[in-house]
Amino acid sequence: MSLRNIYLSMIPLEQARQLTLEAFGRTTKRHESLQASEATGRVLAKAVFAAVSSPPFHVAAMDGYAIRAEETFHASEQSPVFLQEEKNAFAVNTGQVLPESCDAVVMIEKVTPEKMGLRLEAPVFPWQHVRKIGEDIVATEMLFPATHEITPYCIGALLSGGVRQVPVLAAPGVLILPTGSELVDAKRDPALLKPGEVIESNSHVLGKLSEACGGRWIPAPSIKDEVQLLAKCIEEAASREDVDIILTVGGSSAGSHDFTRLAVEEIGEILFHGITMMPGKPVVLGKVAEKPVFGIPGYPVSAILAFEELVRPLIRSLLGRPDIPRPRCPVFLSRAIPSKLGLEEFVRVRLAEVYGRTIAAPLPRGAGCITSITEADAILRIPAHSEGMAAGSEAMAELLRPMEEIHNTLLVTGSHDNALDLLANELKPMGIRLSSSHVGSMGGLLAIRSRSCHMAGSHLLDPEDGSYNQSAIRRVLPDTPVCRLHLAVRIQGFIVAKGNPLKILHVQDLARPEVRFINRQPGSGTRILLDYELKKNQMAPHTIRGYDNEETTHMAIAAAVLGNSADTGLGIAAAAGALGLDFVPLTPETYELIFPLELEETPRIQAVIKILSSEAFRQALEKLGGYDTKKTGTIIRPEKSQG
Amino acid sequence: MSLRNIYLSMIPLEQARQLTLEAFGRTTKRHESLQASEATGRVLAKAVFAAVSSPPFHVAAMDGYAIRAEETFHASEQSPVFLQEEKNAFAVNTGQVLPESCDAVVMIEKVTPEKMGLRLEAPVFPWQHVRKIGEDIVATEMLFPATHEITPYCIGALLSGGVRQVPVLAAPGVLILPTGSELVDAKRDPALLKPGEVIESNSHVLGKLSEACGGRWIPAPSIKDEVQLLAKCIEEAASREDVDIILTVGGSSAGSHDFTRLAVEEIGEILFHGITMMPGKPVVLGKVAEKPVFGIPGYPVSAILAFEELVRPLIRSLLGRPDIPRPRCPVFLSRAIPSKLGLEEFVRVRLAEVYGRTIAAPLPRGAGCITSITEADAILRIPAHSEGMAAGSEAMAELLRPMEEIHNTLLVTGSHDNALDLLANELKPMGIRLSSSHVGSMGGLLAIRSRSCHMAGSHLLDPEDGSYNQSAIRRVLPDTPVCRLHLAVRIQGFIVAKGNPLKILHVQDLARPEVRFINRQPGSGTRILLDYELKKNQMAPHTIRGYDNEETTHMAIAAAVLGNSADTGLGIAAAAGALGLDFVPLTPETYELIFPLELEETPRIQAVIKILSSEAFRQALEKLGGYDTKKTGTIIRPEKSQG
Repeated sequence: MSLRNIYLSMIPLEQARQLTLEAFGRTTKRHESLQASEATGRVLAKAVFAAVSSPPFHVAAMDGYAIRAEETFHASEQSPVFLQEEKNAFAVNTGQVLPESCDAVVMIEKVTPEKMGLRLEAPVFPWQHVRKIGEDIVATEMLFPATHEITPYCIGALLSGGVRQVPVLAAPGVLILPTGSELVDAKRDPALLKPGEVIESNSHVLGKLSEACGGRWIPAPSIKDEVQLLAKCIEEAASREDVDIILTVGGSSAGSHDFTRLAVEEIGEILFHGITMMPGKPVVLGKVAEKPVFGIPGYPVSAILAFEELVRPLIRSLLGRPDIPRPRCPVFLSRAIPSKLGLEEFVRVRLAEVYGRTIAAPLPRGAGCITSITEADAILRIPAHSEGMAAGSEAMAELLRPMEEIHNTLLVTGSHDNALDLLANELKPMGIRLSSSHVGSMGGLLAIRSRSCHMAGSHLLDPEDGSYNQSAIRRVLPDTPVCRLHLAVRIQGFIVAKGNPLKILHVQDLARPEVRFINRQPGSGTRILLDYELKKNQMAPHTIRGYDNEETTHMAIAAAVLGNSADTGLGIAAAAGALGLDFVPLTPETYELIFPLELEETPRIQAVIKILSSEAFRQALEKLGGYDTKKTGTIIRPEKSQG
Repeated sequence: MSLRNIYLSMIPLEQARQLTLEAFGRTTKRHESLQASEATGRVLAKAVFAAVSSPPFHVAAMDGYAIRAEETFHASEQSPVFLQEEKNAFAVNTGQVLPESCDAVVMIEKVTPEKMGLRLEAPVFPWQHVRKIGEDIVATEMLFPATHEITPYCIGALLSGGVRQVPVLAAPGVLILPTGSELVDAKRDPALLKPGEVIESNSHVLGKLSEACGGRWIPAPSIKDEVQLLAKCIEEAASREDVDIILTVGGSSAGSHDFTRLAVEEIGEILFHGITMMPGKPVVLGKVAEKPVFGIPGYPVSAILAFEELVRPLIRSLLGRPDIPRPRCPVFLSRAIPSKLGLEEFVRVRLAEVYGRTIAAPLPRGAGCITSITEADAILRIPAHSEGMAAGSEAMAELLRPMEEIHNTLLVTGSHDNALDLLANELKPMGIRLSSSHVGSMGGLLAIRSRSCHMAGSHLLDPEDGSYNQSAIRRVLPDTPVCRLHLAVRIQGFIVAKGNPLKILHVQDLARPEVRFINRQPGSGTRILLDYELKKNQMAPHTIRGYDNEETTHMAIAAAVLGNSADTGLGIAAAAGALGLDFVPLTPETYELIFPLELEETPRIQAVIKILSSEAFRQALEKLGGYDTKKTGTIIRPEKSQG
């Protein structure tokens, strides 16, 4: 209890990194010898010198005849020189060694075979068309200095320079020890997990990240939350010669089950505990038997960031190499990002090129969500002294994917529909990545207005005339001519538990006191639809239990019902079907993809139109259930009054 | 003979690439199943969907007590609520499953244990500090689409989503068949090569490049230059199920020993032969049993460029992935680069950041030199319609190394001295890369003047007063205050064959008719020294045989003597010693590193000063032979009149 939320010494990230490198960042003394041809990606322990020259002899650089240049110095059209094959002119192919007496090659086109011999009408300069010994590599010259990283190209120079074995630095051994009584091995069947059991995945992520930067992952089985056991495992690991760095994963915070710090204190010393970064605050660095022991937090994004900001620079430093920083790129924010003062925050964002600018849309989810980083294209670093960034402002993003991939991204903002996954899967092989950000129908139209997306998914009912999207577009986008691409008519209804135990059949049932409802966020088409239905039935929102509890996607509504945190919510049949829940149809509605007319001819929009017009897509959509695809793929052009 | 220099259809590179992709660029149908945890770097063959939700249950997001929120709605300071442990408040740690009845977690700091129970003075909202089921991943949702490339992060999402096996595309099999009767296996002792034998290194370079972009290298032993044998080997390779692409290396040109085209014509068809690119012109593409057969040229740089421009895009396309283009960066040319009209030229350049600009210095050597690409930092692409680029002009470079490494480059231009290798090796572990460009002493001072290098190696004798560098600096750099960092006094002399068979002892000996001399280029300090010695001895340059034959480094002079293309040249003892040659001392001279005063405090210059002042460096230098290090590391500041 005494430790709770009291970190030993909460320090800024930059300081933590310097402390880490000062304490442990020395090039490893462990060397090994490898075949040069198998050393790609490894780092030279010592400078390497050429054993032979390349070429090892004077060789022909062209097909032709090897000759002695001075015999041709007086050759001219008027007074040609005649050379005799196999006497003073020797046929050679590119790469062949020159006969001892020769010092030049004349191209075959320059000689004419005649009775008197090979006729030559112009002088040849010494060493013409000859690759001289050592032209590429001179024996004894240094090929690469110590700590040079070997690329496939280098292998060519090493082998040509007669170097068959190279001394390389041993890959730093990174022992990863997952902790937590709840963990089960990733090989176990996930369908058979007991309540409270969690698949151990962090060590695989960190292990592969270690390998990617030149380390060697030494896996260790996960252990229970027990101080003595943890201390014993760390001590054993530290005594191994092949282990350079120890990572414990989980238990690095300051809760009653967080034992990393206690264990390290028993067998070594703590250098710091707690970093003013988010995610990744609860990091421990200790020293046991002169080796670094990192307590890495158990939330996956925290674990990844702690690794990349602290452990990776250390691994690189053991290899005598600089860290591998992420490539950077200036971006514009699609919305404001608030941030906590005093913490350096790492915000995961999606990127897309829209109207020639790179737009960054923050991903909403927390450190516990691995998908918040697998779906991210970049990370924005908000300094500790900042309270956040305004919408539209420029920031520097650190890229997680190549810019080319980002530039081929179709950014769909707005309402969420499961059909977008289908679309994404069809676009991918065409080299286009669909990135969708779920902010509700109205949010999508606003993003079109602020020029921060390509398309908006929208199903905004006009309660006056029962039409969809038209009125909202007229109101929100009076000056932007947009096209409406029909995705489908889909059924909205109540997502309920299997067998509909509470017998929810009508809107009125939502007012029953035992029914726990889960709502969608304001601005979403589904929320507008609910409010319309309530009004039609003269029901007040506050009569519905859970009206103020909100989720932002159909799948999240379905998950809430599956997890029994709600009894029902309004959503689409596909979401209910995906989780094996039941569905009570309420009303059909039109779902459209809205895009600015001026983007219509761009390849990304054209690809979407093409897919939506295909029979295969229509069939796949109908298989999801709850979709009417009669008008799928049709386009409604902007009204004249708009243009 | 009929084929000589007649390519079937010389086409531009872009057209060749399109032709290649149109003919063969389809995502492979060969799939395999891999453990998710072992699939880093592989490409998904099908979309992957989550088998379980993550978290699989509602879990605590904080350490504290799991409670039922509605029991706290009326709590306030005035009227606290008391909860009972194990009845309606259950101690939970982060990640623990919530008891069935609970829907919120209250942090431990917010409750006070008292006699009446746990005192709570504020309401708790439903689902506060709870990670709801499926918050990260909802079972059945698509985790990644087909052709997604799996990163270490992805493994976290796959395992958390209960996916243990993933369907991936088989790595395209690239069979590499080196051809050439001169080739010997890289495992052979290079010291025992017979004249004309060449170590086969290209297949290793191309094999590792194939692996780096997602292919699988299938090695094949090298074969002799024989049409029938080549055709048979290609046919056999094409019939293998695991082979998707065949590369023959060497023999793709149009000479009498270039059999690739003939062999392919016998068993299949030729799509093109010859590309208007340099290096890399003689590329063949054929089709045998519906599979692509590339005839790759044998010069190492040609082979690499042909691979990267044509084969890599194809491998990526078989993987349903875009090509991996090199990152780009604008640069300024340190000197003019002429280029042949009608050929797209790939010029290898060194880069360094000098005065805030990225400077590109072209590397001089040809397609036969693997070191022209291992030493390069970037490639400049000069379009076919251009005759070259002017000095100082801006161009777009394609990077071969991370920009960070380039930014830590110390660019030394000017005279060449073997001590620069020593210096490079000392700088490397300090994170500084020394890049040296050998253009002679005068060229170095001119580079200082044009602000296109950091330091210039210089040993320019003033024949009037016997001083070094001072007069030249006054003449060439009247407005640039520079410092002169003393590297060493070194001995210049005649590099001669072992035993000095021609008994070359004095300058006068150079005029003997049987002595073949090899000279240094104009502007080099060594050339000035020679001309000074000739003048002193009243000898005319044309009396010396070979006066017009030039090399640009001491090592090249030594290599010329070793290779018996000259009997002697002027150079330093270290170069003679490196190749086991003899050395006849002529005169000592001062070698200095010149740098602009305004750069003195920069870390790169400071690092050089520090190394040159160290005892270790002095000792290493003396071990090379021919250096007097008494003044090594001393600095002569700019004259007052200059500043």
